[in-house]
Amino acid sequence: MLKTNFNIKSPKKEIVPFLKEKIDNLTKPKGSLGRLEKLAVQIGTIQQTLSPSLNHPHHIVFGGDHGITAEGVSYSPPEVTPQMVFNFMEGGAGINFLARQHNIQMKIVDSGINYDFESSDQLIDLKVRKGTRNYLHEKAITREEFDLCIERGAQVVKECHNAGCNVISFGEMGIGNTSSSSLWMTCLTGIPLDQCVGAGSGFDSEGVKRKYSILKQALDNYKGDGSIIDILCYFGGYEMLMTVGAMLQAAELNMVILIDGFIMTNCILAASRLYPEVMEYSIFCHQGDEAGHRLVLDYLHARPLLNFGMRLGEGTGALCAYPLIDSSVRMINEMSSFKQASVTKYF
Amino acid sequence: MLKTNFNIKSPKKEIVPFLKEKIDNLTKPKGSLGRLEKLAVQIGTIQQTLSPSLNHPHHIVFGGDHGITAEGVSYSPPEVTPQMVFNFMEGGAGINFLARQHNIQMKIVDSGINYDFESSDQLIDLKVRKGTRNYLHEKAITREEFDLCIERGAQVVKECHNAGCNVISFGEMGIGNTSSSSLWMTCLTGIPLDQCVGAGSGFDSEGVKRKYSILKQALDNYKGDGSIIDILCYFGGYEMLMTVGAMLQAAELNMVILIDGFIMTNCILAASRLYPEVMEYSIFCHQGDEAGHRLVLDYLHARPLLNFGMRLGEGTGALCAYPLIDSSVRMINEMSSFKQASVTKYF
Repeated sequence: MLKTNFNIKSPKKEIVPFLKEKIDNLTKPKGSLGRLEKLAVQIGTIQQTLSPSLNHPHHIVFGGDHGITAEGVSYSPPEVTPQMVFNFMEGGAGINFLARQHNIQMKIVDSGINYDFESSDQLIDLKVRKGTRNYLHEKAITREEFDLCIERGAQVVKECHNAGCNVISFGEMGIGNTSSSSLWMTCLTGIPLDQCVGAGSGFDSEGVKRKYSILKQALDNYKGDGSIIDILCYFGGYEMLMTVGAMLQAAELNMVILIDGFIMTNCILAASRLYPEVMEYSIFCHQGDEAGHRLVLDYLHARPLLNFGMRLGEGTGALCAYPLIDSSVRMINEMSSFKQASVTKYF
Repeated sequence: MLKTNFNIKSPKKEIVPFLKEKIDNLTKPKGSLGRLEKLAVQIGTIQQTLSPSLNHPHHIVFGGDHGITAEGVSYSPPEVTPQMVFNFMEGGAGINFLARQHNIQMKIVDSGINYDFESSDQLIDLKVRKGTRNYLHEKAITREEFDLCIERGAQVVKECHNAGCNVISFGEMGIGNTSSSSLWMTCLTGIPLDQCVGAGSGFDSEGVKRKYSILKQALDNYKGDGSIIDILCYFGGYEMLMTVGAMLQAAELNMVILIDGFIMTNCILAASRLYPEVMEYSIFCHQGDEAGHRLVLDYLHARPLLNFGMRLGEGTGALCAYPLIDSSVRMINEMSSFKQASVTKYF
């Protein structure tokens, strides 16, 4: 089905009781570190070890422009996409201070931004086209471009893995991409479009109504074959498809995948339709305020770590949660057992 | 009323619009960093600056034993209190790995543990008595001991402040102290006792029932004057009263106070009854699973940062949340403004 095939296995579960036994013998009442314990079990299972570790964490921001912005579906003008990419390169954006705080290596990728950047060490040029086509009138992305996106997204992750990375998160910059996400969501989950559309970067309720009516028209105009790949192409973004390829590659390489907000949740939704096992490698980090985010999370049976009312994108929700995931790994590696500490086992 | 008086002022609010203006001009949609923005406003207001900072964070664990444990109100045996203090000193407990992870200086205080420790650099000896009296039959703590606890707790915080600390969190070790907390809670909020009692370190529903019936008897036996100080003495713990003194001192010194779980929430409840302004210095970090915690948080109009199902105590919930608070300060200091980054102000 895909041109690039991935060999994604469900992690073996034989280790789970041993992980639980180790955690239950640490000096604390049984279960008293709550979600840290569950995270440690998940990461230990992915890595198939009782002493998991997070090595060389990377964060990839994929950027792309969207033809649909010509219809006024975003509160922000499209020139903000390249402007913010310059801001990422200069270190002044939201994602930058978080990456510095947690010592996470950042990579910025031009997946399909409508701007001619000069060559730079700080920007990976994987541009497919200068923005997608306007899906009010035509398919946003061709099948050839789709294959290219999956392959290029996967390649970026391979390079991180080669550098020793085993935990990775993704973010995006693309004015208009909450619209694409809402359309993927309604088509892939069956949740009605009006429950999938939200304020994006700042619409008021009138703006959301206008956005909805344009997206409804686009959905009505859709005459494709209804297959998953056709839907992803028709309403997609280059940055979103590269993320899908990146997520699948990360799962194939047994990496821990941190899932950010609304757009990244719809990317993992898409990835999981291609390879359901990708979900087992995913940690959902943040539930945002964008309407529909809770619904798609519920659909995926996902319960994010944080609920901080953030809606910036870029991956800020994932990076905010990184130290909590790090805590879970430190817990299982650094805490003494009852026996080691000569504490009466009190559970 | 108190022997040690505190001069705790409500932070001046004139700076709030300036903090909001600075945050609204950072390169992100308005409000899109959610709770990080609210935290930055709170900390900037406490510190009266547009460039707040977190300096030399400290975490204090107060330990104490409880006479009521003779009645079997805890799932864990009382010898666990000193055993866990040794574990803290050796670095093997839950709170230790978190303090190491976030570079937080820890201090361990013997407030009233029923054990004769040898003198050690790692343990601050402020012992009032080897455990409280059994409040099923008599007042747990005398008025003189109360004054001593407030004064000693305050002294510990003064020393941290002298070392350059402006952000502090507190934790406890004291088998039996969820019982004391439940009794403080019911007396100070009017919430019925049965809604304030939970599983502590691991009771099943039968155990919780037994615990409730003993605490109900203790409450029925109470014949004090109903004043706040009398209630805090009657049902209190030495470690809890030292925490109250420590919290009040921290607020007087304009420090940011991180509030952990059920027991620490009841300590700030007590502190706020003495000086309501202490609440403005407090950041609620974690909502635990202990029955009643949500109720006392609602009573205080507090909405914690995390809901991780933790119930270890020691301050683990507060320390897990520390990097999120750090993120808020980095946001306001490190992000570029729209003007600095030449980004179209898109809100």
